[in-house]
Amino acid sequence: MSTSAVAELICVGTELLLGEILNSNAQFLAQELAALGIDHHYQTVVGDNPQCIQRIIAHACDANTPGRSKILIFTGGLGPTPDDLTTETIADFFDTPLIERSEIVTLLRERYAQRGRPLTPSNLKQALVPQWAEILPNPTGTAPGMIWQPRPGLHILTFPGVPSEMKRMWRDTAVSYLRDQGFGQGVLVSRNLRFWGISEAALAEQVSTFFDQTNPTVAPYASQGEVRLRVTARATTPEEAIVLLEPTAEQLKTIAGRFYFGSDDESLASVVGNLLQSRQETLGVAESCTGGGVGEALTAIPGSSAYFWGGVIAYDNQIKERVLQVDPQVLAAEGAVSGLVAEQMARGVRSLLQTDWGLSITGIAGPGGGTETKPVGLVYIGITDPQGQMYHYPCRWGTQQPRALIRRLSVCEAIDRLRHHLLKRDDLS
Amino acid sequence: MSTSAVAELICVGTELLLGEILNSNAQFLAQELAALGIDHHYQTVVGDNPQCIQRIIAHACDANTPGRSKILIFTGGLGPTPDDLTTETIADFFDTPLIERSEIVTLLRERYAQRGRPLTPSNLKQALVPQWAEILPNPTGTAPGMIWQPRPGLHILTFPGVPSEMKRMWRDTAVSYLRDQGFGQGVLVSRNLRFWGISEAALAEQVSTFFDQTNPTVAPYASQGEVRLRVTARATTPEEAIVLLEPTAEQLKTIAGRFYFGSDDESLASVVGNLLQSRQETLGVAESCTGGGVGEALTAIPGSSAYFWGGVIAYDNQIKERVLQVDPQVLAAEGAVSGLVAEQMARGVRSLLQTDWGLSITGIAGPGGGTETKPVGLVYIGITDPQGQMYHYPCRWGTQQPRALIRRLSVCEAIDRLRHHLLKRDDLS
Repeated sequence: MSTSAVAELICVGTELLLGEILNSNAQFLAQELAALGIDHHYQTVVGDNPQCIQRIIAHACDANTPGRSKILIFTGGLGPTPDDLTTETIADFFDTPLIERSEIVTLLRERYAQRGRPLTPSNLKQALVPQWAEILPNPTGTAPGMIWQPRPGLHILTFPGVPSEMKRMWRDTAVSYLRDQGFGQGVLVSRNLRFWGISEAALAEQVSTFFDQTNPTVAPYASQGEVRLRVTARATTPEEAIVLLEPTAEQLKTIAGRFYFGSDDESLASVVGNLLQSRQETLGVAESCTGGGVGEALTAIPGSSAYFWGGVIAYDNQIKERVLQVDPQVLAAEGAVSGLVAEQMARGVRSLLQTDWGLSITGIAGPGGGTETKPVGLVYIGITDPQGQMYHYPCRWGTQQPRALIRRLSVCEAIDRLRHHLLKRDDLS
Repeated sequence: MSTSAVAELICVGTELLLGEILNSNAQFLAQELAALGIDHHYQTVVGDNPQCIQRIIAHACDANTPGRSKILIFTGGLGPTPDDLTTETIADFFDTPLIERSEIVTLLRERYAQRGRPLTPSNLKQALVPQWAEILPNPTGTAPGMIWQPRPGLHILTFPGVPSEMKRMWRDTAVSYLRDQGFGQGVLVSRNLRFWGISEAALAEQVSTFFDQTNPTVAPYASQGEVRLRVTARATTPEEAIVLLEPTAEQLKTIAGRFYFGSDDESLASVVGNLLQSRQETLGVAESCTGGGVGEALTAIPGSSAYFWGGVIAYDNQIKERVLQVDPQVLAAEGAVSGLVAEQMARGVRSLLQTDWGLSITGIAGPGGGTETKPVGLVYIGITDPQGQMYHYPCRWGTQQPRALIRRLSVCEAIDRLRHHLLKRDDLS
């Protein structure tokens, strides 16, 4: 990343500082700037407070900073109430008077008449715009934004905080303005390569030489057991960026081998679904500690009815015995959380549902229920394959992990184990 | 709000600048700071770039700024990879050497051994902490944070970017540290009242007079079918704040009646769980379009095995017939998405599992599979009560809603329908 910052996001709103709303506007604008190839190095959230807003503008425009910003994008604070101060604070910073624009007044009158509401004096505040600024029309709301060059080479764009209004205004007007001003000639295209079963550190070591590349760049991320490598290429067109990106992506996949499971919107569930569908095989699941989470994940994929027939949530041990035909003696001798019970659960659901594959989970999600020999976080995954062969895999997620994480890791691990079985059989055939 | 800024949030991560993830950490920390009564006026997002991070620190600590910060809270950039630069950049800014801490090395070795993975040289980077800094323990992950006063009156706290780890570290260690340092003497206490089955606008109209109150304040939020009213009181102690807050909360509950289901961490699943447990009754579920989501939601509650025995995921119609004994003629005549099939699914699972209650869902989650008479978004919920009485309820979530939302709304609605049945029976008894 160079240090020649181009754009900067400034999100105004005390509700953001109080944590009342998630700043989804920042995520949207960040994605849009990246797609346009416009760098930005800072996002700031600031309250409805003129001094704080002015301090941010001063920092962003500081002539002594090598990478000072050329585009300031504001969201929020354009409404009619007294705490909506963005426009007047910006005008004040650049010592420019506000002028009431008759075209906005006309528009406001129409909008309010449409809704059967009277225009109040406080609404007229929204018609005040710095002298020489252009109006950035808001087709779906009452608060217009502005596009203003308070000094040569500095572009200020303001948007209301309502996400739907902001997005529409961005797409309708702001993007073409920025392109006309010579910004965003290049594009950034990213591909997220997704991995399961390997730690971030271990994968990063295997591919560490790639982190020094500049175009495409490669960066690792990890969340809830999944590791991602983001490959990002910069070029003048999306097509060229993809050509730049592909060889690196392919090399990374080769190095990671079977730990790589898919890219971008592909999930473990969608990948396993495709493998099952291409082989015209069907699946049933038997779940104890995940309580339906595997079924939920698999059926999140549209069209999953082609290969996923259903399952049994065997939360209580009686259900394991009565519905899944787990041997009561095995259950008594080994305990519900054991490799043998996992295997018998997978066998039981495959037989009950008459599917090709059976997949099961039994474990201790916590926070209670752990013992010395069977601690919280101990989970067994069982698989029965189309030949009736049974397998089981123990996982130890750690005794201190929260229940939700243990359940989520177990769901992903179970689907991944099935993926490995499906891939292995593809090798054999 | 005064201009004496106390805390400042600095979220580090290029993935935030690229818009790949939503900055939920900022929202959490903002809420926590507000609850502690610690003001903060700025949140900044910055990439994994030492120059940019140092520029932010310089601005935050600027001696010429009247409201300069006393607490800098960093999230992100504590991982083992080369682009994780937060700790070394902070140390560098304050001209302090990094020291390898043997206690972190020991801990890392244990963590990796538990997971059966080797400790790599890059992991050891996480053991480097500025001289004199305290370690902020991370009980659920590998990256510890730090608590450091690089100069008198300036407190720096660092957290990993993984939300679950950060939250645990915040609650376990950071809050008491900040209180010990004399911050957060006044408190804000909030209670979130949660409602299902009523729109935000309808509820807001019924309680509109409360929105003008100043202490406690009342503010509405809505997300994925659920409506919340947050009641927030400011006082010198939590106890006083609660005394201020209670009467308003009680009035709001009374106005909303049965639409109110719980407060704060209570969920539809936990409330229904408590109702079942207090009556010593058990539940089984039969799920088609939600594929296990109801079971997953119910078993998210620790201890749910006391009343939740399990269920059948009957995604394929064969399973509805073979396992749940849905009448094939009814299935053919009415279709799988019908009130009668919902009732028979609930009856079937109650009988198979021998539970007191049976709860079922069958519907069209889309995007495909809709017809003129049975559009996407049509879902039937079935209930069989302890007397074997059957009920069904149609829902129309709208043909344009995404699959994930239709499934989520259906899961909540099913659990809420059961809640109403349980409450009704309490009235009768």
